[in-house]
Amino acid sequence: MTDTPLKAVALGGGRGLHVTLSALRLITPDVTAVVTVADDGGSSGRLRRELGLLPPGDLRKALIALAGTDGPWARVFAHRFGGTGALAGHAVGNLVLAGLLEVLGDPVEALAHAAGLLGATGRVLPMSTAPLDIEADVTGLEEDPTTVRRIRGQVAVATTPGRVHRIRLHGHRAPPSACPQAVEAVLGADVVLLGPGSWFTSVLPHLLVPELHDALVRTTAARVVVLNLVPQPGETAGFSPERHLDVLCEHAPRLRVDAVIADADSVATPDRLRRAASALGADTWLAAVAAAPTPDRHDPGALAACLREAIASVRGR
Amino acid sequence: MTDTPLKAVALGGGRGLHVTLSALRLITPDVTAVVTVADDGGSSGRLRRELGLLPPGDLRKALIALAGTDGPWARVFAHRFGGTGALAGHAVGNLVLAGLLEVLGDPVEALAHAAGLLGATGRVLPMSTAPLDIEADVTGLEEDPTTVRRIRGQVAVATTPGRVHRIRLHGHRAPPSACPQAVEAVLGADVVLLGPGSWFTSVLPHLLVPELHDALVRTTAARVVVLNLVPQPGETAGFSPERHLDVLCEHAPRLRVDAVIADADSVATPDRLRRAASALGADTWLAAVAAAPTPDRHDPGALAACLREAIASVRGR
Repeated sequence: MTDTPLKAVALGGGRGLHVTLSALRLITPDVTAVVTVADDGGSSGRLRRELGLLPPGDLRKALIALAGTDGPWARVFAHRFGGTGALAGHAVGNLVLAGLLEVLGDPVEALAHAAGLLGATGRVLPMSTAPLDIEADVTGLEEDPTTVRRIRGQVAVATTPGRVHRIRLHGHRAPPSACPQAVEAVLGADVVLLGPGSWFTSVLPHLLVPELHDALVRTTAARVVVLNLVPQPGETAGFSPERHLDVLCEHAPRLRVDAVIADADSVATPDRLRRAASALGADTWLAAVAAAPTPDRHDPGALAACLREAIASVRGR
Repeated sequence: MTDTPLKAVALGGGRGLHVTLSALRLITPDVTAVVTVADDGGSSGRLRRELGLLPPGDLRKALIALAGTDGPWARVFAHRFGGTGALAGHAVGNLVLAGLLEVLGDPVEALAHAAGLLGATGRVLPMSTAPLDIEADVTGLEEDPTTVRRIRGQVAVATTPGRVHRIRLHGHRAPPSACPQAVEAVLGADVVLLGPGSWFTSVLPHLLVPELHDALVRTTAARVVVLNLVPQPGETAGFSPERHLDVLCEHAPRLRVDAVIADADSVATPDRLRRAASALGADTWLAAVAAAPTPDRHDPGALAACLREAIASVRGR
C-alpha cells in the first residue's frame, strides 16, 4: 500500500455492484463504479424506450451504494412511486437521472451532479455512453437439448429457463464506444473488481465493449474476481464456482486474473476452483464473506477484509 | 429600513409569483413565498390525482424564482420530458418534489431540501399542507346573462369564457388548515405582497384559508398589492385595475392595504384606481414596471425599485 489512497474500480451492475462498492468504500475513498447500460426491464426499460436514454437503474443503485442509504436524497433516489398510474414503479432517482441526462447531455457530467447531490464518495460511470443490447446463445429451450436459441434483451437472458452459453451485443452496426473516463479509470487503477452479480447480464457485458475489454487486459491493476454465493436462478442455474470462471475465460481469453475470492461455504470442490483460478493466473481466497442472516448476500465488512488481504498479497508479489 | 434584512412574504402562484420573488430577491435575502395549492391542471394535476399529493408546479416555479434559472439543477427542475409517452409534459422538478413529499411526509421539510439543492435564497411554503379545490360563481355562460353557474377546479375557473364573480373552496368539510409556518411568516413579516397573477386562481385563494386570511388582516407588515399589467383572458377578461381591488375587497372585507402598485401605462383612469385604493387604505404607486420587449410581463428590476420606494414610504408613516 502507498500513501496515496488506493484507486479502485468496480465493474458490474445491480445488487452485486452494490456489494463491491459498499466494501470498497471501507477500504478507500477513490472508488469508481463502471456500470452496465444494457438493462431493458422495469423502470429503466420504460425510461429507455420512452426517452431513448441510458437505462438509469444500475447507475442509480451504484450512486446510492457510494453514498450510503440513510441520507434524505438517497432515500428519495431509491423511492418508487406506488399506485396504479403512469408513474407506478418508477424510482425517483431514475427520473432525476433522466432529467439530468436530457438537460446536460453528457452522462459523465450528469452522474457527477447526482453524485454531488447524494454526497457519494467516488464516482459512477457508464460502461458506454449509449444504451446497449445483449443477446445470448441458450440451449434447453426445445425438445432437442442441444438446439441453440438466440435470446434477446437483458431481462429475457436473466430469466431464461434454458442454459446460457455465451452473450454478445446485438443491433450495433459498429462496436460500441466505451465511456472514455471508464477506460482511463481501468488503466489508472490499482485494483479492478469483476463480480459478484448476474454473471451474463451484469458482469460479462463489460467485456463486450472492445475498448473496455482491452483496458482490462492491459491494465497494471490487480484484477480481482469476486464469485457469487449461489447460482442465480435463470441465467446461471446449476453453475459451479469454477464454471463462472470458465465462462469468464470464454468471453475474454486474453484476460489474466490475480485473485479469485469466494465464500468458503459456497464452494463444494475447492480444488477444482483453485485449478480453474490458477488457469487464469489467479490465487484463490476462500473466506467467510456471506452475510449472517442472509447467506445469499455478501457482508461488505467481511468482503472488505478479504479484499484487503488479497490486494496486499497481489501488490506484494 | 433597519439593519436586519427586510422580512418579505409574497403570496401567489405561477408566473406572477415568479415576478414578485425575482424582484424581492433584489431587495432582501429574507424572502418567503406562500404558494397556492389548488392547481388541478397539467403535470401538477396529473401528479395530484395519481399520487394524492400537493400539486407541485407552483411550488417548483417559486423555488426556481428564488434560485435563479441558470444553475444546472434549476434547469433540470424546469425541464419537461417530451415525446408521447407516460412522462410527456411532466416537469422533472415536479417529480422530484413528489418524491420528496412521499419520502419525507412534511411538505415544509421537503421544500427546504429542494431549496437547498437549487441554492434558493429564502424559502417556499405551501399555503396549506393539503391540496385544495376552488369553485367559482360565473355568469355569462347561459342565454340569460344573469344566471350564475358554479364552475369547479382551477383550470376551469382560469379559462372560463364567462365572468367570474367570486371564488370559494369546495369539497372540504371543515375549513382547511393553513401551513403553520406560512401563518408565522405573514405575522412576522415587514412587508407582504399580494399579486400580480391570475387574480381568482393564484392571488385570492390565499384569502380562502381562514388562518392565513386572519394573519393577513392582523399582521403589522406593510401590505402591498401589485396589480396585473393586462386583464387575463378568461378569468379577468375586461377587468379594470380598480375592479381587481374591488374583487379583493369582496373576498376580504376586513383586509386593509398600504400600497397599490400599478404600471402607469396599464391604467386608463388613474383617479378611479386611486379612489379604489384609498377605500382600502392604500396609496397608489404608478410607475413604469412593465418589461420593455414584453409589456405583458413585469420587469423585476423596475418592480424592485418601485417596491423599495413604496415600502420605505409605508414604514416611514
